[in-house]
Amino acid sequence: MRLALAQINTVVGDLDGNRDRIVSRIEEARGDGADLVLFPELAVTGYPPEDLLLRPGFIRAAERTLGEVARAATGIAALVGVPVWRRDLYNACALCADGEVKAVYRKRFLPNYGVFDEDRYFASGRDLLLVQHEETLLGVTICEDIWQPGPPATDLALAGAELIVNVSASPFHVGKDRQREEMLITRARDNVAFLAFVNAVGAQDELIFDGHSVVLDDEGEVLARAPGFEEALLVVDVDPTAAIARRLSDVRRRALARERDEGAEPVTVVRIERAAHADPGHRSAEVAPFEDELESMRRALVLGLGDYVTKNGFSEVVIGVSGGIDSALTAALAAEAVGAERVHCVSMPSRYSSADTRSDARRVAESIGADFREIPIEPVVESLTAALAPSFEGREADLTEENLQARARGVILMALSNKFGWLLVATGNKSELSVGYATLYGDMAGGFALLKDVFKTDVFRLSRYLNERAGREVVPVTTIERAPSAELRPDQRDEDSLPPYSVLDRVLEAYVEEDRSVEELSQDGFDADVVQRAVAMVDRAEYKRRQAPPGVKLRPKAFGRDRRTPITNRWRG
Amino acid sequence: MRLALAQINTVVGDLDGNRDRIVSRIEEARGDGADLVLFPELAVTGYPPEDLLLRPGFIRAAERTLGEVARAATGIAALVGVPVWRRDLYNACALCADGEVKAVYRKRFLPNYGVFDEDRYFASGRDLLLVQHEETLLGVTICEDIWQPGPPATDLALAGAELIVNVSASPFHVGKDRQREEMLITRARDNVAFLAFVNAVGAQDELIFDGHSVVLDDEGEVLARAPGFEEALLVVDVDPTAAIARRLSDVRRRALARERDEGAEPVTVVRIERAAHADPGHRSAEVAPFEDELESMRRALVLGLGDYVTKNGFSEVVIGVSGGIDSALTAALAAEAVGAERVHCVSMPSRYSSADTRSDARRVAESIGADFREIPIEPVVESLTAALAPSFEGREADLTEENLQARARGVILMALSNKFGWLLVATGNKSELSVGYATLYGDMAGGFALLKDVFKTDVFRLSRYLNERAGREVVPVTTIERAPSAELRPDQRDEDSLPPYSVLDRVLEAYVEEDRSVEELSQDGFDADVVQRAVAMVDRAEYKRRQAPPGVKLRPKAFGRDRRTPITNRWRG
Repeated sequence: MRLALAQINTVVGDLDGNRDRIVSRIEEARGDGADLVLFPELAVTGYPPEDLLLRPGFIRAAERTLGEVARAATGIAALVGVPVWRRDLYNACALCADGEVKAVYRKRFLPNYGVFDEDRYFASGRDLLLVQHEETLLGVTICEDIWQPGPPATDLALAGAELIVNVSASPFHVGKDRQREEMLITRARDNVAFLAFVNAVGAQDELIFDGHSVVLDDEGEVLARAPGFEEALLVVDVDPTAAIARRLSDVRRRALARERDEGAEPVTVVRIERAAHADPGHRSAEVAPFEDELESMRRALVLGLGDYVTKNGFSEVVIGVSGGIDSALTAALAAEAVGAERVHCVSMPSRYSSADTRSDARRVAESIGADFREIPIEPVVESLTAALAPSFEGREADLTEENLQARARGVILMALSNKFGWLLVATGNKSELSVGYATLYGDMAGGFALLKDVFKTDVFRLSRYLNERAGREVVPVTTIERAPSAELRPDQRDEDSLPPYSVLDRVLEAYVEEDRSVEELSQDGFDADVVQRAVAMVDRAEYKRRQAPPGVKLRPKAFGRDRRTPITNRWRG
Repeated sequence: MRLALAQINTVVGDLDGNRDRIVSRIEEARGDGADLVLFPELAVTGYPPEDLLLRPGFIRAAERTLGEVARAATGIAALVGVPVWRRDLYNACALCADGEVKAVYRKRFLPNYGVFDEDRYFASGRDLLLVQHEETLLGVTICEDIWQPGPPATDLALAGAELIVNVSASPFHVGKDRQREEMLITRARDNVAFLAFVNAVGAQDELIFDGHSVVLDDEGEVLARAPGFEEALLVVDVDPTAAIARRLSDVRRRALARERDEGAEPVTVVRIERAAHADPGHRSAEVAPFEDELESMRRALVLGLGDYVTKNGFSEVVIGVSGGIDSALTAALAAEAVGAERVHCVSMPSRYSSADTRSDARRVAESIGADFREIPIEPVVESLTAALAPSFEGREADLTEENLQARARGVILMALSNKFGWLLVATGNKSELSVGYATLYGDMAGGFALLKDVFKTDVFRLSRYLNERAGREVVPVTTIERAPSAELRPDQRDEDSLPPYSVLDRVLEAYVEEDRSVEELSQDGFDADVVQRAVAMVDRAEYKRRQAPPGVKLRPKAFGRDRRTPITNRWRG
């Protein structure tokens, strides 16, 4: 049997565009002689469509679009993710063949944790769908279904499926790609079944779908794997009936079968035909390697920004470059995402900017080959200071004056964005955003905050990695080696206000991402004062984060929908 | 039996403070001779605690706090909302008596729609809890449980409960107070049971809890109702055994009883004692009236801002007053919320500000008795224009120059906020925020956006109402009668860029709040062009709203957690 896994990049809400993307892959797969082509979860609507799913007109249009897709499924079968209304709304996938929808499988397990809100939209399905292709029986699952060790996968295998397919839109964080495949390998082995996992690829607002679609045999061997972070059509010949030999001797399955409540779930079996244009030669597909950690971060960031720009109709970006490492890295990644010729770097020195950082700001643009301009902010800051002088009379300078500088820059960058239609990319990192070491409407301003989920220590690692990879200074080494400073007052250094990033980032990871308490962190050996201070800063900064632009989720827990913390909150623990 | 309903204003995360609030009401109720005092849902933690519920340390601390509350429950029983860990996490309420926790009821129906995410946190309970007090049997439910027409309320009644209590944190929108009570009246009648509903009061970020706790007899007559938008201890004598007479002749109940799956839900019955300090005289409590629509909006806005200020440790607010109606209304409401002496009004005229609006800006502050200052922005705008001149050479003036003015004002207001610790209250309304007729980091800047969920037509109605109510010009009539203008270019009027607000607001209500499609709106008789344009503006502005400050939810669907729309979204329908 020849399978095709269509790892495609859909756009949320773009029903016509997604239809075209799906249909062209159906045609391509048919040309490759595939019997069945698999598409990701909710491929018709894009994932996640969020509250578009509450609009009846959208649901009706999605089902109409499914009909158009089905008409293209001739001489090949296609399994297409789509929301369907069947006396309630389901996250489903439709088996299309002979130009029509033959059957629908409705997702049983609905994730409602982390970034997911599926209980908000969907009812849970209970039926099993099996597909018969010649001697082979396939069982269908959707995303979260396969993360459950029991049914529906176990029920499908017990009902005879030698191949379990899983259509997913599984969001990325660093390390998730390998963890997910390890889980899939265990499922294949436990069920003594081949497994075909097709994942979405591309970015939707803060989420990255990393692809890495994979086909496993019943012993968990990888038969084929699509590359990460790009579209692919993975075509591979499989003979899942080979699983039967091992099933004859696998007693675990028989024990499970005896325990199973027979007929607990209604089972539908649909027969599909051999491919019209079957290609007799055997096809063994590529096994693309996983990227290592830093490369996967780079790919995710480039894909995240690139897709945000493209899918939202921008073509160019503008970045405030300070001569520091965050803006240098942001600019370098942006050049990869949209092309250096579409990146505009703006240096906005103040009286506190050193000659070194001013020249580094220029070098950042030069090293990537981007447009560069310098707009000194001193006159703007002076006019603001003068306007505020009557109100501020007799008051000491404090953070207010630092924020004025950052906001003068924010206003200038937004004006360039407005005038030329450039997307303003903010340059702050996760460490700063966590503790609120950032100015709202100042350096936080922008349509997208690329490094929002990258800790400062990872900013350093990524910058060095980019240079190694390029074999030259993409991120100027001087920006990497200089002690971090906001340059908002004389001789300022980040570490005057914050613990060293090597310590801070570990505290933040434990508190922000792992929900460790102050007490536990102190027991873990962190300095109690450092922990207390860091945690208080994180909690106080929630109001700033609520107004932060979206950015790429890279970590197991990102700010935003992943971490829903009240602003009004007196808990300190 | 004497019931006390403690309609209290808790603070999320403030376990010690909430304990003190609860204990002092237990003591007050005991002093009033109550047998049982009821507290709102999750009173120990405040509602909604959101992802604090994912922190083990927080859950442990909440249970410790419950123990402290229970120790205070002597000579009286108390029903206290609290999260509990019982091999999983439950939204529960604890029956406390004799200084200890006697039993726990776990909420069965978990709302996961609108502003609610309870499936994210809680497992669903299945047991029923009945409380025996002398001859009376009480059944316990939590919030969403009572919005279900069937179990647990019906099961409780069939198990013999003559009084159903419901502990709630039921968020407000205009009209919800009456709708909720209508539903409760139906539940009391259907179950032939008395009903005691205790609601939280106060604001948490965007949500308002309006109180309006109520006690109904078995025919749905209101025996007592607490006032809206303020704390109260409602003490009332009830004799729910009176329901038995009507049950003897109610055949509907017997039909239901025959159909009920006997013993389907485990039932716990706990006996509580007569109050230690029983007061022999009969107590019939007040029936506070419902506020009419505009008064309920006023109360909700005042409570929402007041609580945001207080609970987040602010004491004063700053508002940019333009001489227009939005800022005039915001200032008037802020004066009610925090006191006029804590309101700072700042007028920031530009070359486009008319003499009329300049003097009206001053009159706004005068009419409420607030601090006033004028900070002309012209020099700041000029310095920004000069800084940008080399980049903008050869370009026509456009929205960019308008945004510069709005952002100069935003920077000045934020500087005042930073220097003096004043909360900046943004003045934009829901109509503007819907269509994006607002400048990000400009007039949208602030820690709280008071009118975020008030349509422009309601801004007019509320302003007139405030004046009528005060019997004087709190909101200057000239600001009400002048045609709305952003005054960012010569002779600008809102209706040059937007449909008349009377039309626009109806389109927005249907599209934003009711998920009507463009097609349906056209069928409803709206001009197709107006609809198309308005809808496109709404969709395009999602990125701005994502960075908007929080504000009071007043409508059935507010922006924010209530309407989760993707930014990247090509659906136009």
